[in-house]
Amino acid sequence: LHGGDIDGVRSLVEPMHAADIADLFELVGRDDRPPLAAALAGLIDGDVLAEMNDWVRDELIDELSATQVAEIAGELETDDAVAIIEDMEEADQRAVLRALDPDDRAAIEEALSYPEESAGRLMRRDAVAVPEHWTIGQVIDFLRAGEEITTDFWEVFVVDPAHRPVGTCLLSWILRTPRRIAIADVMKREQTLIPVDMDQEEVALRFQKYALISAAVVDQAGRLVGMITADDVVHIIQEEASEDILRLSGAGEDDINEPLPQTVRRRLTWLIVNLGTAVIAAAVVGLFQGTISHLVALAVLMPIVSGMGGNAGTQTMAVAVRALALNQLTSSNSIRVFVREFRIALVNGACLGLLLGIAVSLIFRSTDLGIVIALAMVINNLVAGIFGVLVPVTLEKLRVDPAVSSAVFVTMATDVMGFFSFLGLATLWGLGG
Amino acid sequence: LHGGDIDGVRSLVEPMHAADIADLFELVGRDDRPPLAAALAGLIDGDVLAEMNDWVRDELIDELSATQVAEIAGELETDDAVAIIEDMEEADQRAVLRALDPDDRAAIEEALSYPEESAGRLMRRDAVAVPEHWTIGQVIDFLRAGEEITTDFWEVFVVDPAHRPVGTCLLSWILRTPRRIAIADVMKREQTLIPVDMDQEEVALRFQKYALISAAVVDQAGRLVGMITADDVVHIIQEEASEDILRLSGAGEDDINEPLPQTVRRRLTWLIVNLGTAVIAAAVVGLFQGTISHLVALAVLMPIVSGMGGNAGTQTMAVAVRALALNQLTSSNSIRVFVREFRIALVNGACLGLLLGIAVSLIFRSTDLGIVIALAMVINNLVAGIFGVLVPVTLEKLRVDPAVSSAVFVTMATDVMGFFSFLGLATLWGLGG
Repeated sequence: LHGGDIDGVRSLVEPMHAADIADLFELVGRDDRPPLAAALAGLIDGDVLAEMNDWVRDELIDELSATQVAEIAGELETDDAVAIIEDMEEADQRAVLRALDPDDRAAIEEALSYPEESAGRLMRRDAVAVPEHWTIGQVIDFLRAGEEITTDFWEVFVVDPAHRPVGTCLLSWILRTPRRIAIADVMKREQTLIPVDMDQEEVALRFQKYALISAAVVDQAGRLVGMITADDVVHIIQEEASEDILRLSGAGEDDINEPLPQTVRRRLTWLIVNLGTAVIAAAVVGLFQGTISHLVALAVLMPIVSGMGGNAGTQTMAVAVRALALNQLTSSNSIRVFVREFRIALVNGACLGLLLGIAVSLIFRSTDLGIVIALAMVINNLVAGIFGVLVPVTLEKLRVDPAVSSAVFVTMATDVMGFFSFLGLATLWGLGG
Repeated sequence: LHGGDIDGVRSLVEPMHAADIADLFELVGRDDRPPLAAALAGLIDGDVLAEMNDWVRDELIDELSATQVAEIAGELETDDAVAIIEDMEEADQRAVLRALDPDDRAAIEEALSYPEESAGRLMRRDAVAVPEHWTIGQVIDFLRAGEEITTDFWEVFVVDPAHRPVGTCLLSWILRTPRRIAIADVMKREQTLIPVDMDQEEVALRFQKYALISAAVVDQAGRLVGMITADDVVHIIQEEASEDILRLSGAGEDDINEPLPQTVRRRLTWLIVNLGTAVIAAAVVGLFQGTISHLVALAVLMPIVSGMGGNAGTQTMAVAVRALALNQLTSSNSIRVFVREFRIALVNGACLGLLLGIAVSLIFRSTDLGIVIALAMVINNLVAGIFGVLVPVTLEKLRVDPAVSSAVFVTMATDVMGFFSFLGLATLWGLGG
C-alpha cells in the first residue's frame, strides 16, 4: 500500500466513514502513522480524531500546531472537542484555547472546569429548551425558525421561568400532536436529571436502568445546562467495563496502542506488589521446612491447595466486583450474598477435597496424607469464598476501587492460608515426623 | 416493612419507576419475593418485569398462569416481550403464545425464529418507513395522520419500492426543513444496516463505532424488517462486558441472583478442569523430588516463580482478550502485538529477576540460588507474555470464545514452566547435590 502511491491511498480512503479511517490508523504500525497522516492530509478531520484511540490520537496531535488543533476542535461538538483537548499537556492546551474563537473557547473552558469523567465533560451544551406555557404549534414554529438550533436532537426539554427542567417531550410526540395542545399536557413529567458533577459511570448506569436516549444535565441550582445522549454513553459503558476487566487482572488501563515504557511501568508496579505477597506466602512455607524435608510429597502437593483456592477466590471476587459495579450489591443484601458464597464454597470445597483426597490416598498410599489434603482444600475454599466477598465489599466501603486492588488481597489470603492449612495440618498430624 | 402493612408498602412503591420496583425485588431475599409480589399485585406490569434480573423474573413468572403472562407480554414492545418469553420452558412458551392475540403472537413467533442473541431478537418491528419520492410535507402529514405509528421513534427510514432502506432522516431534520423539499434531498444516504442474523455483540460494536441512536435491520434480501435503538444496545454492552469479566475468572454467567445449585455446578466444573492442570503442575514438581529433598529452600521459593508468571500471564491475557472483543486485535496486527508483549515480558522479567535474585542471594547466602531463581523468573515471564497473546488469538481463530478458556491454558503454561524452569535449572546447576 505504501509504495509512494499517495493518490491510490487517498482514493481508497476517501469514501470511508470517519470511524473506519480512525481504525486504519490503529491497525498500521507506529512508524507508518506519520506518513499515512501526511498522505491523507485534508481527509483527517475532527470526526476522525474523535473516533481515534487516545494513544494514537495523542501521537498525531503532537505533530500538529496549536492553530491546526484549534481549527479541528472548532468544527466539533463541545463534548468531542473536550475529549481531544483534555488529554493534552497544560501548555499545549492553553495554546489551543487561545487559538479558538471566543464562543468555542468559553464552551470548552467551561467543560474543562468540571472534574474529569464527570457529566459536565460528557454533555453537549446545545440542548433545546422551551417554556412550559407554549403550545405544540409554538414549539414547532420555534424549532423551524430558530437559527441557532443544533441539527441532531431527539427530545425537547421543557423548562420553567428559572430554566429548571419540568419535563421532556420526544420529537415524535410533538410531530404527532395537534398544534393547539399545550406542550405541558404532552410532555413526560417523570424525568431523569443528571447533576453536572455526577461520575460518568453513574451516568451510564442511569441510562441503562431507565433505557434513556437523552437526558437533561442540571447545575447545582437545578437549571438546565446541557444534555447527554445515548451514543456517548455507549462509549462510556464499553470503556468502564474494559477498565474493570483490565484492573482486575492488574493490567491497569492498558491498551495495545499505549507506548511501551508506560505499559512496562504500570504492569511492573503491580507485579512488584504481587512479588511482596508471593514472598509472604513463601515465608509461610519456610516455617514448615522441617516437615517438608521429612516428606517431600508435601512440596509436590502444596501448590494444588494454594492454586485451587486462588481459582475459587477469583470466581467469587469477579462476581462480587461486577455486582458492586452494577449497584446490585449494596449494604442491604451483602449479608445474603456473603451467606450464598459461603455455602457455595462449602459445597465446592467438599467435592474437590473428596476427589483430591481419594486420589492422593491411592497414589501416595497414605490415607493420612489424603485426609490432610482434603481438609486443607475445604478450609482454603472457605477462605476463598469469605475473602472473595469481604475484600471487594470492604474496599468499596473504604472508597477504594475494588476492581483495582481486590485481586492482591484475595490471592494473598488463599496462598497464605493454602500453604498454612496444608503444611500446618500435616505437621499436627505428625506426617513430618 | 413486611409487618402486614400492605397499603403502606403499596403507597411507598406506587410512585416508583418500573426499573426501581424491579430493583426492589432483587434486593429483598428470595423468600420475601412472593409475598412482595402478592402485595404489589397490579403494580407489577410488563415494564417492571422487563427491567428485572433474569433469575428473579423467572421465579416470579413461574408463579403466574400462561394467560397472565400473555396479558403482560401483550402490553410490551416486541423486543421486551421476547426477552421475557425466550427464557421460559418450551411447553410454557407455547401456552403463552396460544393465549396471545394473533398479531402479537405472529410478531413474537417471528422474533423467536431468529437465533438467540441475534439482531432479530433485539429489534422492534415498528420502524417508520416512507417512500423516497415523498416531500417533507408528505412525511409530516403521514406522521401526524398515521394511526398505527408507534409513539417513540427518533428517525424515519426512507425505502425504495422493494422496501429496501436507501437513507435515514432524523426527526429533527424533518422538523427543520421546509415542507416542499424532497426527503431524498435531506436524508443521510450513508447508513449502517444491521443484518437480521448479526450477533448482538457485533451490533453493539457497530453502535459504538458509528455513534448510532437507532439503525435499520434488514433481511437477507435487504428489505427493512425493523429497527434497533441505542437504549437496548446499552443493555447488551453492559451484558457482554460483564460476561467477559466473569468468564475470564471462570465464574461463567454467574450472577448473585442465580439459584445456588446451578452456580455450584458451573463453578465446580471449572474448578475440576483447573484441578487437572494443577495436578499436571504438581507432577512436574514430582520429577524433582530428589533435588528438593536435598535443598528444601527450593520448595519454599518455587511458588514465587510460578505465581509471578501467572500474574504476568493474566495481565497480558486480559489485554489481548479485551482487544479481541473490541476488534482491535486482528490478523493484520497480531504479530506487532505479539512482539510488543514479548518486549514487555523481557523488561519485566529482567527487573523482577534481578530484584528477587539479589534478595535470595542475601537471605539464603547462596549466589547460585540467586542466579537460578533470577533466570527462572526471566524465562517464566517470557512464557507468560508468549502464551498470554498466543492462547487467546489461537482460540479466537478456532472459534472458541477466548474469554472462557484462555485462563486455563495460560495458567497451566506458567505453572508448569515456572516449576520446570526453576527446579530444572537448580538440578542442572547442581544445587540439589
